[in-house]
Amino acid sequence: MSLKPSSSARSIDPYRMMDGRPTFSHVATSTGPSRIIITAGQVGADENGIVPATPSDQIALAFENLSRCLEAAGAGVADILKLTYYIVNYDPKNRHHAPHLIKFLNGHRPATTLVPVTALANPEYLFEIEATAAVAQAPTQTVDVVVVGAGLSGLQTAYDLQKAGFSCVVVEARDRVGGKTWSVEPIASGKVIDLGAAWVNDTNQTRVHALAKKLGLATVVQNTKGNVIQHDLDDSKSTFVYGTVPLLAEINGTENMVYVRDLVEETCQQLDLYKITPAGKDLDKLTLEEFVKAQEKGESAFATVTIWTRVMLGLEPSEMSALFFLDYCNRGGGFLQMRSDKRHGGQYMRLVQGTQSLSKGLTELLAPGTVILNSPVRLIRQDGSGGAYVSSGRGDFKCRKVVVSVPTPLYKEITFVPALSEAKTTLSSSTVLGYTSKAMLMYDTPWWRTANLCGMVQSFKGPVAATRDTSNDDKKQYSLTCFLVGDWGREQSKKTKAERHQGIISHIRELFSPFVEVPEPITIIEHEWAKDQWAQGCPCPATPPGIMSQYGHAMTTVHGNVHFVGTETAVKWKGYMEGAIESGERGAEEVIKSLTKAKL
Amino acid sequence: MSLKPSSSARSIDPYRMMDGRPTFSHVATSTGPSRIIITAGQVGADENGIVPATPSDQIALAFENLSRCLEAAGAGVADILKLTYYIVNYDPKNRHHAPHLIKFLNGHRPATTLVPVTALANPEYLFEIEATAAVAQAPTQTVDVVVVGAGLSGLQTAYDLQKAGFSCVVVEARDRVGGKTWSVEPIASGKVIDLGAAWVNDTNQTRVHALAKKLGLATVVQNTKGNVIQHDLDDSKSTFVYGTVPLLAEINGTENMVYVRDLVEETCQQLDLYKITPAGKDLDKLTLEEFVKAQEKGESAFATVTIWTRVMLGLEPSEMSALFFLDYCNRGGGFLQMRSDKRHGGQYMRLVQGTQSLSKGLTELLAPGTVILNSPVRLIRQDGSGGAYVSSGRGDFKCRKVVVSVPTPLYKEITFVPALSEAKTTLSSSTVLGYTSKAMLMYDTPWWRTANLCGMVQSFKGPVAATRDTSNDDKKQYSLTCFLVGDWGREQSKKTKAERHQGIISHIRELFSPFVEVPEPITIIEHEWAKDQWAQGCPCPATPPGIMSQYGHAMTTVHGNVHFVGTETAVKWKGYMEGAIESGERGAEEVIKSLTKAKL
Repeated sequence: MSLKPSSSARSIDPYRMMDGRPTFSHVATSTGPSRIIITAGQVGADENGIVPATPSDQIALAFENLSRCLEAAGAGVADILKLTYYIVNYDPKNRHHAPHLIKFLNGHRPATTLVPVTALANPEYLFEIEATAAVAQAPTQTVDVVVVGAGLSGLQTAYDLQKAGFSCVVVEARDRVGGKTWSVEPIASGKVIDLGAAWVNDTNQTRVHALAKKLGLATVVQNTKGNVIQHDLDDSKSTFVYGTVPLLAEINGTENMVYVRDLVEETCQQLDLYKITPAGKDLDKLTLEEFVKAQEKGESAFATVTIWTRVMLGLEPSEMSALFFLDYCNRGGGFLQMRSDKRHGGQYMRLVQGTQSLSKGLTELLAPGTVILNSPVRLIRQDGSGGAYVSSGRGDFKCRKVVVSVPTPLYKEITFVPALSEAKTTLSSSTVLGYTSKAMLMYDTPWWRTANLCGMVQSFKGPVAATRDTSNDDKKQYSLTCFLVGDWGREQSKKTKAERHQGIISHIRELFSPFVEVPEPITIIEHEWAKDQWAQGCPCPATPPGIMSQYGHAMTTVHGNVHFVGTETAVKWKGYMEGAIESGERGAEEVIKSLTKAKL
Repeated sequence: MSLKPSSSARSIDPYRMMDGRPTFSHVATSTGPSRIIITAGQVGADENGIVPATPSDQIALAFENLSRCLEAAGAGVADILKLTYYIVNYDPKNRHHAPHLIKFLNGHRPATTLVPVTALANPEYLFEIEATAAVAQAPTQTVDVVVVGAGLSGLQTAYDLQKAGFSCVVVEARDRVGGKTWSVEPIASGKVIDLGAAWVNDTNQTRVHALAKKLGLATVVQNTKGNVIQHDLDDSKSTFVYGTVPLLAEINGTENMVYVRDLVEETCQQLDLYKITPAGKDLDKLTLEEFVKAQEKGESAFATVTIWTRVMLGLEPSEMSALFFLDYCNRGGGFLQMRSDKRHGGQYMRLVQGTQSLSKGLTELLAPGTVILNSPVRLIRQDGSGGAYVSSGRGDFKCRKVVVSVPTPLYKEITFVPALSEAKTTLSSSTVLGYTSKAMLMYDTPWWRTANLCGMVQSFKGPVAATRDTSNDDKKQYSLTCFLVGDWGREQSKKTKAERHQGIISHIRELFSPFVEVPEPITIIEHEWAKDQWAQGCPCPATPPGIMSQYGHAMTTVHGNVHFVGTETAVKWKGYMEGAIESGERGAEEVIKSLTKAKL
């Protein structure tokens, strides 16, 4: 199944001209109706204007920025018609840019001009590159429903709609389906790693379990056999049996931590899934940090809470209201269940083929041609004449209903005409997406098990906040997943990838070496969701104090003919794949009801 | 009523990239079918290659040239996808171009690349800028008639055609309707100034009067109360009562002038509006200068004739045949009537809301969507299969008939396939458009009236050739309109605007200060019609000797399915708004007759 749209760009090498291989052609044309995309000159400076120290890193960053620009418009390298690059102090004998260019182009050969210059806009810049691209445009299609986003929620909506007999397309900005379900095989086929969502269970996550079963997907139970490593505030490393509590260095640390844990469990269980109680309203006046610190239970307890919010949401306890966090836990059956790696817990099992197989499987169940990739939606217009007009990177649509499945902070990437309500706009601008990057260290063997370690760590010192054994023994895929999350993750994110990876490997060695000999990983792989323009963070947007109680109700309010889904709108297992599916079902149901009523 | 087309250009700021505000975005795309427009690098050099002295003026001129390029293609700043600019001796600490760029962009942010260079094509050039723009294309429309140009004649044609039941669009190059009727409010709402056509009467200009009445437009009678100032050849300033003749310094000057005036009146009255008489043919062998100089009536008489041709046509007596001028006068009821500011005269009254209100009013009477702005027509093709194909800046049209309402010299801006007849081509290339710029000096009070001056001047010395009081007392709009016309106007046009305005203000002071204290104007406003690419001069094309008698007949000849209107084709009040309306009616009548015949 290839959903990739073909390029409208065509390169031509006129007869008897200088050979442009491997990087350029003399002519490029765009065939058929297309959208023209032009980038500004891209230099090697990051979002803060910081220019890397070496020319090579600067050039690499310029290409990265160029890729980002193209991606923002739904274009890829193969869509480029023309590249112009400007080089300061160009030396024909020393073409620093060439390896970067060859790697970037990956065989594509656009028309190209190299311009040596004496300087660029800023004296630090040594290299600048700009592109003109063309993206084929399909003729305007008329469908019943356009779903924006081919993550699990959007795909589920489309599936339900098609089953009910409605025509539907799913328009996706990325070059793949799955949203934050993304499974890759970095070292070998079958040795699958989940860069995003990973865990499910087969008891209270009924929807995701049913889907996995329907698709015939094999599961693997999360390893909890053996000891967890505790990296304490005093830098000591100790171990404790999974399911028990660590013996913390701080006086009364363990009891205090248990007190706070039980308070969180108890308080969250008292909330109501369907309305905000008076107690909930009060909890929305505080940050989670304020709520916890008011208990005066010391440093370790707070360090533990910080690990929870980091690992669960990529955020600090100061960044969300107490209500948000407790409500979030309640939707997963309570704090203890949500945090558990055991049966009924949030991290009980994984999918052998990775969680993206859920999204891919759902896609296969849709009518051919339903999903349109590389096609960011930038405009949703309702002119009052009924229905809506959706403009996307690869073509436009007239439809009766739109279902938007992207996270609230990404609403700003779409121009809504008329504009979204104030409540929705406030939600979109107030919700915060966390920094979550799972760095996966892949090994030849599950070496930690030899020392009766389950592969789980919790660290009060960082940079890695927690780890999990994410191996699949049947496939001989052995890996430790390291959570770079919250402020520690943001800090790591400022480093170069090499520096960051070295830091992770060092921390893993520091954590495990008191108990076992630590080998070098075969590879390390990660995806910085916070830098991903179609995620902008991970896993689920949170709200600071005051937002949830005042605007939370607007999350699922329809906007004319536009409906809203996504795991953050779920009643149960919000932030999880289960919640995504639930919300997708709810969205489809809303649309079906409204379209069926319209027929009568 | 907003007729402005929306832009197809869309800027994108990808998530987490360097902030491009206020001048650029990282990505620009064009949505939907569009016409791509690419300009050459524009430098700060005028049409003669002259480069302004200061870098700032050079940059300003480059932006002005860029605007002209875009306008020529029906594009505006908001349609720009990409700007690339090249700067010699670029200093990042001293970005001279920045204020010009910000002003030019007016909030739009295209993708942009700045390229410092050591030199440009010419050593004088310090700055060069090029643009890529996209203009949304409407799907090809099929209509009965396409009218080219939304001036009064074109709008009148469209009005009559729609009244007769034919579908019709009016395709206009400018961003407004009205052609050379253009009314602005430079200092305050209601204080309207006419940059172009200004005067009408309510007796023999029946069509324009009827239209003004139908639209409920108020009129104001031209002030002729008090004395006119005569600026004589010996530089003396004297006054005479409006309607009498000045006492000229030259011996017999006054009598000679009267002689020539009466000769012109008598000769013009003997011409035939519907055919060229043998006497007329003879008059077409001479320039008006030759005709007048043959009378040997001295300098003052010729200076007076020169003021006539300048003020009436923006031209010198040497630039038109005697026949052209006399015929022109005859069509306005004779020289005396045409020149008169009194009842029945050509300058008897003005419109309180300005003459553009005629064009706007007519537009309002058309079916919604009839007028398409910013859409220059560049191609009119007839392939012999009947009807015509019109290609315009915002979309193409299939139609049965085309009505071209632009002045003959602008036919060259349109590619006719098949080409126009030799006679029409000769007319188009031989007719001359004058230099007419009305510089309006606006004041708090009509100070000239305190000295019993009517605000009218005629100057034999320049730079201002004549003035008129163009106040509207009810609105407390007080202004003197200064005619910068003919060779004097062309001379002034070479100066910078500041120099030119200073020269006008000085001349006004020089003219009036012998009689009254002259205050500084609140503001001065002008429009150089000769530099306006959709006018190329003003008010009415004239013909040099030999053209009118040989090719004049071809003015209204149809070209297959293409008809021609415009005030220069009028039988009466040629060059005036009355003539424009008459010609529009005639064009509609021709088309209706021919389409009705086709039906039978």
